[in-house]
Amino acid sequence: MLRTHTCGELRIDNVNNEVTLSGWVQKIRDKGGLMWIDLRDRYGVTQLTLEEGRTPEQALKTARELGREFVISVKGKVIERYSKNDKIPTGEVEIDVQEINIQNASKTPPFVIEDETDGGEDLRMKYRYLDLRRGEVRRKLELRSKMANAVRNFLSDQEFIEVETPVLIKSTPEGARDFVVPSRMNPGEFYALPQSPQTFKQLLMVSGFDRYFQIVKCFRDEDLRADRQPEFTQIDCEMSFVERDDVLDTFEGMTRHLFKSIKGVELGEFPRMEYAEAMSKYGSDKPDVRFGMEFVELNDVAQNKGFNVFDQAELVVGICAKDCAEYTRKQLDALTDFVKRPQVGAKGLVYVKCNVDGTFKSSVDKFYSQEDLKVWAEKAGAEAGDLMLVLSGATNTTRKQMNELRLHMGKELGLRKKDEFKPLWVVNFPLLEWDEETERFHAMHHPFTSPLKEDIAKLDTAPGEVRANAYDLVINGVEIGGGSIRIHDKTTQALMFKHLGFTPEEAKAQFGFLMDAFEYGAPPHGGIAFGFDRLCAMFGGSDSIRDYIAFPKNTSGRDVMIDSPSVVNNAQLDELGIRLKED
Amino acid sequence: MLRTHTCGELRIDNVNNEVTLSGWVQKIRDKGGLMWIDLRDRYGVTQLTLEEGRTPEQALKTARELGREFVISVKGKVIERYSKNDKIPTGEVEIDVQEINIQNASKTPPFVIEDETDGGEDLRMKYRYLDLRRGEVRRKLELRSKMANAVRNFLSDQEFIEVETPVLIKSTPEGARDFVVPSRMNPGEFYALPQSPQTFKQLLMVSGFDRYFQIVKCFRDEDLRADRQPEFTQIDCEMSFVERDDVLDTFEGMTRHLFKSIKGVELGEFPRMEYAEAMSKYGSDKPDVRFGMEFVELNDVAQNKGFNVFDQAELVVGICAKDCAEYTRKQLDALTDFVKRPQVGAKGLVYVKCNVDGTFKSSVDKFYSQEDLKVWAEKAGAEAGDLMLVLSGATNTTRKQMNELRLHMGKELGLRKKDEFKPLWVVNFPLLEWDEETERFHAMHHPFTSPLKEDIAKLDTAPGEVRANAYDLVINGVEIGGGSIRIHDKTTQALMFKHLGFTPEEAKAQFGFLMDAFEYGAPPHGGIAFGFDRLCAMFGGSDSIRDYIAFPKNTSGRDVMIDSPSVVNNAQLDELGIRLKED
Repeated sequence: MLRTHTCGELRIDNVNNEVTLSGWVQKIRDKGGLMWIDLRDRYGVTQLTLEEGRTPEQALKTARELGREFVISVKGKVIERYSKNDKIPTGEVEIDVQEINIQNASKTPPFVIEDETDGGEDLRMKYRYLDLRRGEVRRKLELRSKMANAVRNFLSDQEFIEVETPVLIKSTPEGARDFVVPSRMNPGEFYALPQSPQTFKQLLMVSGFDRYFQIVKCFRDEDLRADRQPEFTQIDCEMSFVERDDVLDTFEGMTRHLFKSIKGVELGEFPRMEYAEAMSKYGSDKPDVRFGMEFVELNDVAQNKGFNVFDQAELVVGICAKDCAEYTRKQLDALTDFVKRPQVGAKGLVYVKCNVDGTFKSSVDKFYSQEDLKVWAEKAGAEAGDLMLVLSGATNTTRKQMNELRLHMGKELGLRKKDEFKPLWVVNFPLLEWDEETERFHAMHHPFTSPLKEDIAKLDTAPGEVRANAYDLVINGVEIGGGSIRIHDKTTQALMFKHLGFTPEEAKAQFGFLMDAFEYGAPPHGGIAFGFDRLCAMFGGSDSIRDYIAFPKNTSGRDVMIDSPSVVNNAQLDELGIRLKED
Repeated sequence: MLRTHTCGELRIDNVNNEVTLSGWVQKIRDKGGLMWIDLRDRYGVTQLTLEEGRTPEQALKTARELGREFVISVKGKVIERYSKNDKIPTGEVEIDVQEINIQNASKTPPFVIEDETDGGEDLRMKYRYLDLRRGEVRRKLELRSKMANAVRNFLSDQEFIEVETPVLIKSTPEGARDFVVPSRMNPGEFYALPQSPQTFKQLLMVSGFDRYFQIVKCFRDEDLRADRQPEFTQIDCEMSFVERDDVLDTFEGMTRHLFKSIKGVELGEFPRMEYAEAMSKYGSDKPDVRFGMEFVELNDVAQNKGFNVFDQAELVVGICAKDCAEYTRKQLDALTDFVKRPQVGAKGLVYVKCNVDGTFKSSVDKFYSQEDLKVWAEKAGAEAGDLMLVLSGATNTTRKQMNELRLHMGKELGLRKKDEFKPLWVVNFPLLEWDEETERFHAMHHPFTSPLKEDIAKLDTAPGEVRANAYDLVINGVEIGGGSIRIHDKTTQALMFKHLGFTPEEAKAQFGFLMDAFEYGAPPHGGIAFGFDRLCAMFGGSDSIRDYIAFPKNTSGRDVMIDSPSVVNNAQLDELGIRLKED
């Protein structure tokens, strides 16, 4: 018997029980005749005590051979602690040790296995199995497991069927970011790993599965920005005979359920905002609505007053930072520096202080009278004591810059609170996106996204203005999920392909089997996919998805623990019908 | 609103409700002025009714344009049926149609979309999305989803954490059946897809996760025998601080829970049988114990009576087929033909009829007296009316042949009942397996499988006799799961590698990071993996796992629906640093 109890289980009621515990030696204090050992497992820490004279010699001897992270099993009696530790649930008791068995020795670990560790990122990744031993890290993966369970139970209760779609699928010409997998049985041919199960879930709707979901690994072979992984996990969902609000209501329900059951947070109804409104009010399709500071367009009041910069601008836009009129020169300079950073890219920043005495002080006093500035302030809802910040230029660029500035100010002013969660549906994205490089339209989501019915007529006249029946779920400025109602009729699909510049033959080559399937009675359907790694990170209060993945890869796509990817031998490549390219 | 109810929902209580249903047209009967349409969705079938004079003209007109598998939405009133159909839950009502909207037309499907279909296997695989529309097929995947849920909830309740291990892992020299994945970010290097998460789950034990599970895709690139798939799903589990019986008890509990909750079947306690006993009694490490017909060794009573074939045999072994003494010449010849088939490979079959009159008639009457045969019969527990079947030869070969014969007889006699489930743990497999080709021992499971403690001493003297602490769960003669207690100490591991013929350097190269991890306090641990596809097939009463996979591949590893694998273009290969081998 390796244990009768876990290290997190014993309480004052267990006093006098004879128990066996197993775990890792976390800490040893040896004060001459008295010894204490903290024994740790997944469930907690229990203190062991040994005393010369009282504890059997053999146990004392073994205890003195122990080092950090040794694995031991211990027999003894539960006794009440003299000085209790109210920080841990087992803190009222300790084990009076009778017998110790070393199950395994340990080398000294390369970093301290506690919540506060001395190990740097690289070292912890190389020894990820030791990093995972830290409670803080393990709890993140426990949270992930719990969340997956909550998602599955919620969706199963709503008649969703989880279906496993294939991992070895077909490589398509446009799959530039596909991982490909050579086949030994079919030398010279390749499978691809799915970037998402999109086509399969649509096929399942054609099959009449009605409500599908899957928590599923997806793959993308691309340069990894800070917080991307080559393999990532989606909560992938699709529903038949639904319109947009059916999908939104269902997954709003799921999200509310998760927040309530996992975090105890009531989210209430999720607002729904047009993409166009999000862009004009926040300059972003994923606005952080934990705080206001909405954009105010000032063209009509700021132009034609002789300030060339504004006069030539397509857009003059401001935000109002509450109670910031007292910002110092240095603080204002720092803001100007911020917007001038290459990542933001503005040429300069105009400020207007709404002084508490009712006067205004701006960086453009030369061009604008107190009266002018008062009009601005009224338009922006700025009151005495507030600070207005104004940017100008081409509409899209300026909005992006102002979005950065708004988020920056929100952070500076402590308005982006970690423990506050503000969800938002952003709906009616543009259907098509003009690509300067190829000089043609691309599908903003994918070519099966349905246009809004009322916009279909515009496909021929003003394709850039056509809105898609597509939606994103945004929480605290982070895109958590996105999806759309799909096209299910041939006529609209053909129109769509035409506008994407596909000949019918090209469309057939790329989407053949899905188009074939659609000939046999495709129902109206739509769906959504959530980034599960990111959702977990948000629930855990972290910005990094990597913490929520048991064995993540680094930004070069390498697993430094197992040292992968690696070379394979030529015999193996031979069998696959491939060879390395010589340089 | 596309539907107010599903097609499986309406009952007599709904009469007079105004409803909207959506679904597929399953059947149309047009009797002049009267029309009936069966409307189908995932949840059931509801009858629609239309009548000239009563039904609006427009609806009648639309109804007459419909074909099989059209997708429609229908508005109407629920009315009581005149002639009720007690075979379906909605059979008491029908919809008096007011309005029909065609959501989508359908070409005539290539086969009939009903439980009884006229479509052959190949055609159904090419149009798998239509095959999945058949209730019989869909229910198999619903069962799978339900089982996955039951497994997850059971294990989560037992404190198992589901952890997603990576799909892009490291290719190892021995990974002859690995799928490999070239990396665009690391040209010339490859990931491998896991054949199982074995090393990762052991690492998680080193990390102190204590109880891990995962329902996970695994991959094997090998010639696919009839019922294998290149990608398959495992219920993968591992536990720390456990001995064999802890693992067996836990997963016996899980299996019992599944049978009870999904099939309503009480399994009771699972017997545990030594591998050696399974081999001597059934000639198989996965015996079907729904029926007896155990092997009886007859060497001592059948040898030295002048029958050369038996005298020279290492093993003479018989089974007793109850009440088969009346088998005709033709039936006996068919049995002889059966054992002589190349797949079985016996040279011949000896029979002994235990006639109802107490006499014996055998194919070896020339060598054995009535008295001799009576002794055989007593030994085999054969009574008047029974038939004994005897094979002889080298022990292992003969056992295998007798296993085939036993299973064949069990099937012929109707003893392998579909609705009866007999589980069995087979334990203590041999640790090592002699490989004639390489003239060395191989690990029968894998090199981390622990030998039985009491057998470790024999590793040096008689390695072939050392038993592993390994176990398989067998149900009705099908291996459903298998696992072992792992080696967690360095000394045993080193001994093991020595006997497997690895130099320390080779061991390091192949298992480096796991061995490194084991230096830092590996706990005693063990685990098990279940073949989830096979478990589903068993629950569904099928022999084929393919039916339980949404989008399976054929025996050449091809997905004929999406036509994969396929060629990829040279630009893509270039980026990956590989090229096709020219022939």
